[in-house]
Amino acid sequence: MNTNGPCNTDQATGVTYRDAGVDIDTKMTAVEQIKARAASTLGDTAGPIGHFGGTYRMPGAPGQILVASADGVGTKLRLAFTVGGAAHARMGEDIVNHCANDILALGARPHFFLDYFATGQLDPEVVASVVGGVADACAANGMALLGGETAEMPDMYAAGEYDLAGFIVGSVMDSDIVDGSAVQPDDVVIGLPSTGLHTNGYSLARKIVGMTGDLPRDRELLAQPLPGGGNGESIGESLLAPHRSYVGDVMPLLEDGLVRGMAHITGGGLSDNLPRTLPHDCIARLDPMAWDTPFIFDHLVNVGQMSIAERYRVFNMGVGFVLIVAPESADEVMSRLPEGRLIGQIIPRVTSDESAVQGLSC
Amino acid sequence: MNTNGPCNTDQATGVTYRDAGVDIDTKMTAVEQIKARAASTLGDTAGPIGHFGGTYRMPGAPGQILVASADGVGTKLRLAFTVGGAAHARMGEDIVNHCANDILALGARPHFFLDYFATGQLDPEVVASVVGGVADACAANGMALLGGETAEMPDMYAAGEYDLAGFIVGSVMDSDIVDGSAVQPDDVVIGLPSTGLHTNGYSLARKIVGMTGDLPRDRELLAQPLPGGGNGESIGESLLAPHRSYVGDVMPLLEDGLVRGMAHITGGGLSDNLPRTLPHDCIARLDPMAWDTPFIFDHLVNVGQMSIAERYRVFNMGVGFVLIVAPESADEVMSRLPEGRLIGQIIPRVTSDESAVQGLSC
Repeated sequence: MNTNGPCNTDQATGVTYRDAGVDIDTKMTAVEQIKARAASTLGDTAGPIGHFGGTYRMPGAPGQILVASADGVGTKLRLAFTVGGAAHARMGEDIVNHCANDILALGARPHFFLDYFATGQLDPEVVASVVGGVADACAANGMALLGGETAEMPDMYAAGEYDLAGFIVGSVMDSDIVDGSAVQPDDVVIGLPSTGLHTNGYSLARKIVGMTGDLPRDRELLAQPLPGGGNGESIGESLLAPHRSYVGDVMPLLEDGLVRGMAHITGGGLSDNLPRTLPHDCIARLDPMAWDTPFIFDHLVNVGQMSIAERYRVFNMGVGFVLIVAPESADEVMSRLPEGRLIGQIIPRVTSDESAVQGLSC
Repeated sequence: MNTNGPCNTDQATGVTYRDAGVDIDTKMTAVEQIKARAASTLGDTAGPIGHFGGTYRMPGAPGQILVASADGVGTKLRLAFTVGGAAHARMGEDIVNHCANDILALGARPHFFLDYFATGQLDPEVVASVVGGVADACAANGMALLGGETAEMPDMYAAGEYDLAGFIVGSVMDSDIVDGSAVQPDDVVIGLPSTGLHTNGYSLARKIVGMTGDLPRDRELLAQPLPGGGNGESIGESLLAPHRSYVGDVMPLLEDGLVRGMAHITGGGLSDNLPRTLPHDCIARLDPMAWDTPFIFDHLVNVGQMSIAERYRVFNMGVGFVLIVAPESADEVMSRLPEGRLIGQIIPRVTSDESAVQGLSC
């Protein structure tokens, strides 16, 4: 079953991210204010804020651009609190891969990572598990775990709970930055598959599957087999699927100059992230039937009766990373990315009020 | 009144950081595990973890060492939740200055900063205030606010509460790193005054002053004048005193090669932070009567009946940053630091089991 295409959802009654307590519009307003304040601190050396990472021209290193990003795991953490065990290490991997993909989207190779782990009362086993996951993922992405902060904050976090954020620095030569400015009509849009929700949309997903914070009951819910899941995986396993890194797949293509634009599909989905790498005169027309959507999305979209607009803004819907390449490069890129799918095409913008991403609604 | 010197505290009945829910020893055990895991990810380019910042040798930039650090505001945030208003901007300044001092302690000039702000429900006014403080402090420290993450996580944070962490990157030439290896006997220890607790010891301080989380009652407590405070400031104002940056004072001394070792006095106090910049064969002998202790510490130490060992491990006790300089440089450095105090001397270690910092107990 593929829920991308058919317009069979009652959009008036569907659950929204706002219902789950997350207001993307309020966040966007706050982010705009932050950008304005931050812009006042940027000198000649720093680039604009708003892409997937911030850029900084390294003094004394001609042509070298440092690219940095900060992010958190978000409420996927509550899955780990509920399930425990190996899920804690997964959180560590998730935040590293999330950050690595963010700076990859500008063409940067990751150099080092620092984590921020805050909890009410330190459980050495949990800390070791989370940081073990962080260290493993750093090694897999070819970067150093350079440090971090482990904070014990009684009265701030409930027993057994923690927050986890990450900070990454990489670099790219200024001539090699991929910011989408080279994207043009007729370019090809290639999607790389996600493993699931990665690290976005969990406040809504938890609400849809019925998690309430009652641990024994939530564990039962998560242990149920995913409807339509095929291989018998549980809802919990599907929701805990790791945020994968695209560094290994994409970096060789960047070295060969084959990519014009990239987007890491995180909060805001394809609808909000793809425009970040599109020139204003270009539109991405997508074909949602062109890729397979993991069963977990079908389940969430159906149970939550989510509108089509909402699902593509809250979830990645199966596409974790997007490459935009020249038509003449498409065959080579596709041959080097066995999992890649041709998911759309760049077309010229006709009117200024057109949506920058089309094909995701009926 | 100066509580540093006299041994008038009943050490058996005094309140400890552990009583307040923070176990520094457990944290140290966890940190050791983290270091071991992190060390496995460090290649030729990255330096050892354990100083105030992590170091990374920048590829393509001969001699350039990037220095990075991550930190959080900790439970000082609860003061801002209680008092509101301008206290939110203060939290932003606090985290930036904390991070700037951390990498300064290795000799690094700050380049850029990213923040992580996580809350249950975004309040645009609070976000704007916090990030305004971050931006102001970045500008004051001569660095760029390059980006950050603003996370809305319902079910993770209580209404009106948030966590705030920061990440900083600076650089130093490898020949200019100040890691304490040049420190030797007869060197002089100079203390720079703190404004108060900066960002450490607040879980205990809140317990000592009697804050319970009952907002109206806590506000009344904080509005009371600080006993012995002289200028009539309230307990709340004293506790909210800003974490000051030492970048402006110290960087010119570094440029002139006048400093052999530095320590940022954060969690762990003088007792745990000063040893980080001491060679194994050196001991710092301090004279606690040599500097003025802000009244807030007298109040906390007296009400909490804190043992001498505990107070110097939990609080900075009035010394926010320490410089170790050669005897022949002492006069020049002191003349350039009007607020500096000669607080001790480096002496040779005689036996391997001696404490690395002496003079802080009876």
